[in-house]
Amino acid sequence: MTQTLAINNSQRLQLAPLKVPDRLLLGPGPSNAHPAILQAMDTAPVGHLDPVFLGLMDEIQSLLRYVWQTNNPLTIAVSGTGSAAMEATIANSVEPGDVVLVGVMGYFGNRLVDMAGRYGADVRTITKPWGQVFTLEELRIALETNRPAILALVHAETSTGARQPLEGVGELCREFGCLLLIDTVTSLGGVPIFLDEWGVDLAYSCSQKGLGCPPGASPFTISSRAMEKLQRRTAKVANWYLDMTLLGKYWGPERVYHHTAPINLYYALREALRLIAEEGLDHCWQRHQKNAEYLWERLEDIGLTLHVERAFRLPTLTTVRIPDGVDGKAIARTLLTDYNIEIGGGLGELAGKVWRIGLMGYNSRPENVDRLVETLKAVLA
Amino acid sequence: MTQTLAINNSQRLQLAPLKVPDRLLLGPGPSNAHPAILQAMDTAPVGHLDPVFLGLMDEIQSLLRYVWQTNNPLTIAVSGTGSAAMEATIANSVEPGDVVLVGVMGYFGNRLVDMAGRYGADVRTITKPWGQVFTLEELRIALETNRPAILALVHAETSTGARQPLEGVGELCREFGCLLLIDTVTSLGGVPIFLDEWGVDLAYSCSQKGLGCPPGASPFTISSRAMEKLQRRTAKVANWYLDMTLLGKYWGPERVYHHTAPINLYYALREALRLIAEEGLDHCWQRHQKNAEYLWERLEDIGLTLHVERAFRLPTLTTVRIPDGVDGKAIARTLLTDYNIEIGGGLGELAGKVWRIGLMGYNSRPENVDRLVETLKAVLA
Repeated sequence: MTQTLAINNSQRLQLAPLKVPDRLLLGPGPSNAHPAILQAMDTAPVGHLDPVFLGLMDEIQSLLRYVWQTNNPLTIAVSGTGSAAMEATIANSVEPGDVVLVGVMGYFGNRLVDMAGRYGADVRTITKPWGQVFTLEELRIALETNRPAILALVHAETSTGARQPLEGVGELCREFGCLLLIDTVTSLGGVPIFLDEWGVDLAYSCSQKGLGCPPGASPFTISSRAMEKLQRRTAKVANWYLDMTLLGKYWGPERVYHHTAPINLYYALREALRLIAEEGLDHCWQRHQKNAEYLWERLEDIGLTLHVERAFRLPTLTTVRIPDGVDGKAIARTLLTDYNIEIGGGLGELAGKVWRIGLMGYNSRPENVDRLVETLKAVLA
Repeated sequence: MTQTLAINNSQRLQLAPLKVPDRLLLGPGPSNAHPAILQAMDTAPVGHLDPVFLGLMDEIQSLLRYVWQTNNPLTIAVSGTGSAAMEATIANSVEPGDVVLVGVMGYFGNRLVDMAGRYGADVRTITKPWGQVFTLEELRIALETNRPAILALVHAETSTGARQPLEGVGELCREFGCLLLIDTVTSLGGVPIFLDEWGVDLAYSCSQKGLGCPPGASPFTISSRAMEKLQRRTAKVANWYLDMTLLGKYWGPERVYHHTAPINLYYALREALRLIAEEGLDHCWQRHQKNAEYLWERLEDIGLTLHVERAFRLPTLTTVRIPDGVDGKAIARTLLTDYNIEIGGGLGELAGKVWRIGLMGYNSRPENVDRLVETLKAVLA
């Protein structure tokens, strides 16, 4: 004990125990978690090398493979939120000088551009107006022109509500000898995904949207083709925390200590995945679709216009045009403070132009649609 | 809805709801969380831009300044575990070619070496046998020889149980014009720390040790001197998720969206910090010291030898030499599986030579010492 100095109490707040309002989270995420999942968070942690915990990690891996429809051995949860899993795909696949072609049709495409640049990629982009998606032909031309090592696409653009079809893209990438990296942050658990059938090599997601879990542990997967590129690297991965050559030894049979996992979040994620397996993935996807269609219908009934063409709309996230003359921010603030309902505003190109309404995981239920639309109608009146 | 493929159910585990044993965690961390903190985890999340959440972030910042005894404006929790906060200090302070001098007296010094190398540092090391610490004179000579941009030291070496005294080191660093970066993973909340008085420029910690919170949100702080170096950078920080030029805009008055924070972990961290402020930092440090001394006395009473010289022992983590002829791993396994008590084994140079016993946060209580020592005595008999 070497305390020789006096303690400064200027920052010693005296606070009451935590009390937060009970919000209905219908924005772009987080969404409300199933009560059973929240309850799992209130379980005493075990150690990160406890055999019980290692067993739970195996369960998470299997169930993540199920929800993603992949057999990739290294399918894990990264100890951070979705952006950390995004960075994990970039950090482990990009070597300095690699050409990375990013399809930018919203905010998160731009984030991929930013990240890939930080890892030394020669970044090329193709763009679409926010709310639209790329055709297979457009992708073919861009691959032909740029000959990238990696094509990065956003399956579910959280900023626009658009779903990028991926059928046939994997074949194109094989034809041009590049890896396919996709963002499934707003699709996993809520939108049909067939990673292996689609030939996806790297994918990431989050826990707090379609999986209906609190944020903080984020799905990551890598195919054997992408693993080969990783193993051929001459320099270490330029990110220690997200280095899959190290993380693979913790999640794999070696069980080599890497970092202390966020134990309770893994409890929650395991419960979230267990509930989806219980419900069945097909049922879960159909539920999201059905409730989204109900939302679209009800929004149009009160005179609102949806931003994305129906064929490419995400069932998890709907962008609604803010009517002329309406202060979108003020409406969202009223919904939050007077009615405890959160919806999102627009980002980037769509700032001030749309609201973003999420129906994800546990929140994808008709009663939430009713509560939102009735409140919105009253507030807009 | 474009589901045209059949769902593969091979990884669809059918699991029972989560059930984990009730362990007493007396290893190097995680430690058991206070019940009030666990309960906070079971609170419905609000959004990461909700005014209520932004207010909670401010509370966390103030209370982190209190427990660290600093006035650094950018004092936040990183959305990952302690190693992410460690990487945040390196990623934001190191520019390619910078000489970084690391004091290695255990496993976590080596981790700093690994990380700094990944960010392009010209890494130099000074070393000590595991369990010992550096003198001020040794540090002066090393600074004179290497003239680093950054000196990185581990205040509390989790792998050895040794406490590196830091009085006078900040003055030395100023004399030689370098920044001082320190690891307080196993000291924050349990061992006296006076960051500002000691002239520390960058520090990181974790939530699951002295703060007695589950792992996943990790303290980070940066001084104005280090901020100036960060602002002078010509290239972007080579890590998007941990880039303080972006995170500072989310935690600061601008409130610019960066990533979705792990909301419930911040609830828990806020509660953990609130409880320390309620107890008082001096009382909290004294409690850790008193219970550690009681542990040391009782361990010596049953004939065991402590690895670190008394003056440099951490009150949070004690390394105990495994007696000759005893299978340390088997004993730890028996404690875990038959008695639900977790203790740690040795890492690196100390693998097979010591056990590591933590008394941190909520777990630093005499009844835990009694339960452990009596059980250990019985198992060793």
